[in-house]
Amino acid sequence: MGHMLIEQRLRKPLPPKMVSEFTERFGTRFSLSLPVREHHGRDESPFPNMLPDAVVFAESRDDVVFVVKACSEYGVPLIPYGAGSSLEGHLLAIEGGISLDVSAMNKIVSLNVEDLTVTVQPGITRKQLNEQLRNTGLFFPIDPGADASIGGMASTRASGTNAVRYGTMRENVLGLEVVTAQGKVVRTARRARKSSAGYDLTRIFVGSEGTLGVITEVTVRLYPQPEAVSAAVCHFPSMQNAVAAVIQTIQMGIPIARVELMDSNAVKASNAYSHLNLRETPLLLFEFHGSAAGVQEQAEIVQEIAREHDGMDFEWANLPEERSRLWTARHNAYFAGLQLRPGCRASTTDVCVPISRLAECIDRAGELLATASFPYTIVGHVGDGNFHVLMLLDPEDSNEWQESEKLNHALVEMALSVDGTCTGEHGIGLHKLGFMHEEHGEAALELMWALKRAYDPSNILNPGKVLPTL
Amino acid sequence: MGHMLIEQRLRKPLPPKMVSEFTERFGTRFSLSLPVREHHGRDESPFPNMLPDAVVFAESRDDVVFVVKACSEYGVPLIPYGAGSSLEGHLLAIEGGISLDVSAMNKIVSLNVEDLTVTVQPGITRKQLNEQLRNTGLFFPIDPGADASIGGMASTRASGTNAVRYGTMRENVLGLEVVTAQGKVVRTARRARKSSAGYDLTRIFVGSEGTLGVITEVTVRLYPQPEAVSAAVCHFPSMQNAVAAVIQTIQMGIPIARVELMDSNAVKASNAYSHLNLRETPLLLFEFHGSAAGVQEQAEIVQEIAREHDGMDFEWANLPEERSRLWTARHNAYFAGLQLRPGCRASTTDVCVPISRLAECIDRAGELLATASFPYTIVGHVGDGNFHVLMLLDPEDSNEWQESEKLNHALVEMALSVDGTCTGEHGIGLHKLGFMHEEHGEAALELMWALKRAYDPSNILNPGKVLPTL
Repeated sequence: MGHMLIEQRLRKPLPPKMVSEFTERFGTRFSLSLPVREHHGRDESPFPNMLPDAVVFAESRDDVVFVVKACSEYGVPLIPYGAGSSLEGHLLAIEGGISLDVSAMNKIVSLNVEDLTVTVQPGITRKQLNEQLRNTGLFFPIDPGADASIGGMASTRASGTNAVRYGTMRENVLGLEVVTAQGKVVRTARRARKSSAGYDLTRIFVGSEGTLGVITEVTVRLYPQPEAVSAAVCHFPSMQNAVAAVIQTIQMGIPIARVELMDSNAVKASNAYSHLNLRETPLLLFEFHGSAAGVQEQAEIVQEIAREHDGMDFEWANLPEERSRLWTARHNAYFAGLQLRPGCRASTTDVCVPISRLAECIDRAGELLATASFPYTIVGHVGDGNFHVLMLLDPEDSNEWQESEKLNHALVEMALSVDGTCTGEHGIGLHKLGFMHEEHGEAALELMWALKRAYDPSNILNPGKVLPTL
Repeated sequence: MGHMLIEQRLRKPLPPKMVSEFTERFGTRFSLSLPVREHHGRDESPFPNMLPDAVVFAESRDDVVFVVKACSEYGVPLIPYGAGSSLEGHLLAIEGGISLDVSAMNKIVSLNVEDLTVTVQPGITRKQLNEQLRNTGLFFPIDPGADASIGGMASTRASGTNAVRYGTMRENVLGLEVVTAQGKVVRTARRARKSSAGYDLTRIFVGSEGTLGVITEVTVRLYPQPEAVSAAVCHFPSMQNAVAAVIQTIQMGIPIARVELMDSNAVKASNAYSHLNLRETPLLLFEFHGSAAGVQEQAEIVQEIAREHDGMDFEWANLPEERSRLWTARHNAYFAGLQLRPGCRASTTDVCVPISRLAECIDRAGELLATASFPYTIVGHVGDGNFHVLMLLDPEDSNEWQESEKLNHALVEMALSVDGTCTGEHGIGLHKLGFMHEEHGEAALELMWALKRAYDPSNILNPGKVLPTL
């Protein structure tokens, strides 16, 4: 996609002294090979590959400190790399440098079942974590769909399907261990559920996309597995009806655990990809957590609300394997979408708006998409006011790319006009840099830059991401 | 209390040019009078008065910008002042300067019932806010006991009795309008429930105790008033039994709205002060929110847990006026405590620990208090692992002050040894400066100082608070 506006910048080759030091320390865990660099020079964003100069496979905090200190000394960019599931170009080496792969740092450091907390290394993925928690009666709810790393999820302030009930990474990270640009190891907070002891270092790093420090441990909150869980699909004649039902449910304060919107394109794609037989209309996918009686009560109220908005009868998925099948399908909606157009690249919108403005915003998306020259699907974490248009683009066709960018921009304009944000959960990366000024204004960006300069004065940590040049 | 270690430092008189500019702009809203300065030179902390050189009564954002710019130009300290309810010396003018009273900025700027959000000026108190919300079906849950201002609550990352269910100010502030040390107006975030668009400016200012900027607007989340509310008192033979019941309740994930611990001293004080007839044993005060059936179910489970720990039968307070009477008594526990010893000053501990370590920590408090030469009460937001020892000191007796400081220090040591914090909700102010190094370590403090220097390079914003000299 050479027509895209963001291209890798000129960079200096790695200093030979650094290369020999890294070779000596890391052996085969330091790689200059093209396939390894290619693997680390792409993500799930629509951008072309931008290769780092080398990749280090870290296995410990000490490895991270060594790499950060060396990058600092030699003035070489450093990009932390977890599961590679970024959608916005966070991992692309726009200025070259070192990709610091922490995927082997995937252990549980300490599990505190009685306190409902766990401390993990950053490379553990959310599925790996929940697999290891299976027999504890606890689970980690944040679920962005992709099997992202916990470090990456903290870095992008990720959320996903459960956020309406359990919050996002912002609310669920209790503390971090971070290596600063100066190579110092900092613990941002202790394990108390709340604290008023000084500045909120934890939340400074959560969402900072690797630009302020490298995360080496994450302590997160866990939750007791609910006594009862039930899931239901509800079909609606239109997107408008479905969204109206969600808005009313949220406004009434029903503690639903999940409510996901899929348009008929997304349902069609999922039917094909995940071998389901869902009716191909707009639908909401609900999940209720609580006591057996509580779950039933919630479901009855929501069914009632749905009926008021012409929703059909709930189709229940109460067995774990049925639920798992449905949610796996929802999680695979991204890949299902890609299958609608073999060989395509996807570009995704991620606006999030106050719930009362969600219906207009989805209407606007519909208007904009009516004349689109590419296929698309719409899915959304609508309980939070967040939805995605997955635009399936021909990588050889620059017109389609421009059209998709124009559409994304129009949708962001709409979101900002109703006091929403350009990104609910995917982050800025490279793709949304252009919206930062419009969303935050100059004075707020100056505060962000002041923080960046204070913490990373040489601009070695994931340079070129999050903050546009002022 | 001239024996206390922290004393007002030498300071320069206000520049005459500044005085004449302020007189011209603010008229009678600019005061140099001793009684006004005395009123603004104290708070609910145990420290002696430290008077500002002058007080400005702001009525608008423009007033705040004017004052901040002038203080910046003349190098004069500035201390934002809301309701004066700080317990830790946040408001004391240790370096003199201007006290910026925002209590007249107490309007609702915009209420969005459909989005469950409200934007307020910083001087509105939580009771004023809830009074104005009364007919909307919504409420603002954060309740630190005192009728604090919302701006002050944001500044100290306050929480209180409802936090176990609804979170703290950290989770409930959606965005702020802040005037920076440079006099620029910044909006930290939009009204979307979540966002991944750049650094979390909101959480940088929440808990920063007026040292990074002056808050001029606060947008917070609201919640639908629960369909059913019920409250119950449960007496226990010992503090240990009560705490064990709480720990089990939290670990089971029962969504209780409030659970407050009072020791027998606190109950005795409240009986006298609030004209109640509670049995004078340790007790837990519960509140349950939800549907009628949900509330009943929760209460039955918790009663069962309480019985396992030798708790007595719940005494119910289901009528709003009964509940209000109980909670008013709990809220007045601080003032009730003061009445135990007429003429005393109170010093309060505020440790917060992981829930599994709460019992040991309260045991330790009991050991330390066994030989105390002053009266005390213990109350706690125990669902969060947070409790307070209210120590009632003779202001003329320096031995008592030293003894209370030693006790506070021993309790903080204990809390830190189990990965807790020196302050769950009151903040650092002047009183807990000495614990910051031990709690966070040098590298974390360096990050906090780097932020402070980046945002307030001349150190005019509430100097001497939050961060100890490195």
